[in-house]
Amino acid sequence: MSRPVLDFFFEFASTYSYPAAMRIGGLADAAGVAVRWRPFLLGPIFRAQGWDDSPFNLRPAKGRYMWRDLERICGGLGLPFRRPDPFPQASLLAARLAHVGFESGWGEDFCRAVYAAEFGAGRPIGEEAVMRELLGGLGVAPEPALARARSAEIKARLRATTAEAARLGIFGAPSFVCAEGELFWGHDRMTEAIAWAAARRYDGGV
Amino acid sequence: MSRPVLDFFFEFASTYSYPAAMRIGGLADAAGVAVRWRPFLLGPIFRAQGWDDSPFNLRPAKGRYMWRDLERICGGLGLPFRRPDPFPQASLLAARLAHVGFESGWGEDFCRAVYAAEFGAGRPIGEEAVMRELLGGLGVAPEPALARARSAEIKARLRATTAEAARLGIFGAPSFVCAEGELFWGHDRMTEAIAWAAARRYDGGV
Repeated sequence: MSRPVLDFFFEFASTYSYPAAMRIGGLADAAGVAVRWRPFLLGPIFRAQGWDDSPFNLRPAKGRYMWRDLERICGGLGLPFRRPDPFPQASLLAARLAHVGFESGWGEDFCRAVYAAEFGAGRPIGEEAVMRELLGGLGVAPEPALARARSAEIKARLRATTAEAARLGIFGAPSFVCAEGELFWGHDRMTEAIAWAAARRYDGGV
Repeated sequence: MSRPVLDFFFEFASTYSYPAAMRIGGLADAAGVAVRWRPFLLGPIFRAQGWDDSPFNLRPAKGRYMWRDLERICGGLGLPFRRPDPFPQASLLAARLAHVGFESGWGEDFCRAVYAAEFGAGRPIGEEAVMRELLGGLGVAPEPALARARSAEIKARLRATTAEAARLGIFGAPSFVCAEGELFWGHDRMTEAIAWAAARRYDGGV
């Protein structure tokens, strides 16, 4: 029998997507839920509502709180945490590479490697050299992956995922969408989203 | 021995303050934590960052999500839920009355009654008639309470609480502040805030 499906929309620049990405695989597996990883870009969604920067930069008090909150969360989960500078990091190349990874079998490992580098080690994920190193660490030849990441097809796939996120009512990351359209926002709602998906037992064909 | 103290900053127009206000008393009691209820106004804090309305109205996708999320939360907790119209409700009079209540011994009951009327029954809490009815239901004579709510002293107390919230880095409601300044934001963080306060065992003199 097919497992119920949960769509996991995440953005590599998003801080709370880090603990979500590191945890969702194990938690969903334990609940019998299949996760569909959906890398998208928040930038176009933020710009559509008039923002040209992260809300954590536009609202300094909220930003200060977020960093402390993330530090507490990572501490509680035993995840390494180091704030990248600048924030937000440029996430376009990583998001395109992730789409390559999901058609090639190394998508999840790549996503976790990107988040660990960015928020676990504070590394600049917008740099191609860092991407090459992460790909190499996964045993993936960097050149073909980078070439594919810059193809019209992969660019279109990322744009389509972002458009679908907007259509589903997504306004932040991480977000989780159950088969019938039920939306959950934030790392705080991840276990609830998984439980919701598991209870519905929707035959998503996965 | 004194119990550790947790400051609970809430705003009557704030949706997620509703489940927090209904639950914090029992949860804090069970953890041996004393709660200091701090009614404040988010309006001045929002206006200081250029907002003239609730972020849930300024960002419609986030607003749609919030109402569904609140409905799920209330359903899970067995709390009645009815969306007030318009949103946000005018909360100034209720906030002033709450400050009267906390100097008079009926503060907590009044706050819970306001939230239950507003988000449990969808009633207009900005109307003086509704306030009179809630006060009467608590056995409080409405006229002296309303007169006191409009005194310069109570007005100043609400302004001071709002200024203190801003000074503490508060940018939304509900917010929880432990004795040493540790800040937690949102109904989602309430149990964590209580546990943090309990673990510190700060002698706050309550």
